[in-house]
Amino acid sequence: MEDIKKKDEAYMRRALMEAQAAFDEDEIPVGAIIVCKDRIISRAHNLTEMLTDVTAHAEMQAITSGANMLGGKYLKDCTLYVTVEPCVMCAGALGWAQISRVVYGASDEKRGYTKYAPDALHPKTTVTSGVLEDECRALMQDFFQRKR
Amino acid sequence: MEDIKKKDEAYMRRALMEAQAAFDEDEIPVGAIIVCKDRIISRAHNLTEMLTDVTAHAEMQAITSGANMLGGKYLKDCTLYVTVEPCVMCAGALGWAQISRVVYGASDEKRGYTKYAPDALHPKTTVTSGVLEDECRALMQDFFQRKR
Repeated sequence: MEDIKKKDEAYMRRALMEAQAAFDEDEIPVGAIIVCKDRIISRAHNLTEMLTDVTAHAEMQAITSGANMLGGKYLKDCTLYVTVEPCVMCAGALGWAQISRVVYGASDEKRGYTKYAPDALHPKTTVTSGVLEDECRALMQDFFQRKR
Repeated sequence: MEDIKKKDEAYMRRALMEAQAAFDEDEIPVGAIIVCKDRIISRAHNLTEMLTDVTAHAEMQAITSGANMLGGKYLKDCTLYVTVEPCVMCAGALGWAQISRVVYGASDEKRGYTKYAPDALHPKTTVTSGVLEDECRALMQDFFQRKR
């Protein structure tokens, strides 16, 4: 159990590096990676401003490129690590992808799927929340404080 | 009122043409268009199989290309016409885009957002359902009957 926790934190640090890249590009700082059999198969960060596209969330890009990498649209043996709780759109996409596991850092009370679409994920998908929560949230708070 | 109904049906026929294109490519037959000030700014059909990408729903592609066409990520003066009720993912995306109006044909009891994420759309978005419902549903039924 301690091992899983350590591994989750290590992968979440990679997702945080992606979130930092978003921050540096003046994008809302959310980062995501997808891990399949202990290998990172995709990494992405929010690009909604740069692409002027509301669908360009970190998770969406990670799903698309992960599926591309695997050559199939389902992510059944994969774990998504994302710094912030997925929104309704991203949770819906993760549901279609039938991803095995979702690990997120900070909760999103305003836009998170657990409030607006609690059954969006596939019934078999397991969820772990709060991994490196403080760091993930701090990056978001920093970003929005600078915007004021 | 009669005029709006006629216009909605005319635009839904364009969305149905997109759905038929999906059908012909052996994709689940869903088509969508986005109309802005009486002009079609994007049209798309489901391409999840061809692109091996669960995010390649008709609506998602229509949102991305519509925003690209307008040069901004919000679709505030736009109407999406889609042959089948949007899923959770697509409704979430339409929510982010703050689209003015959503018009759909057939309901989707299994995957539709009205069951799984009834508050996914922007509070100001108006919704009309059941436009050319029989034709939209028939295309879906035809598709799945052939698959059996």
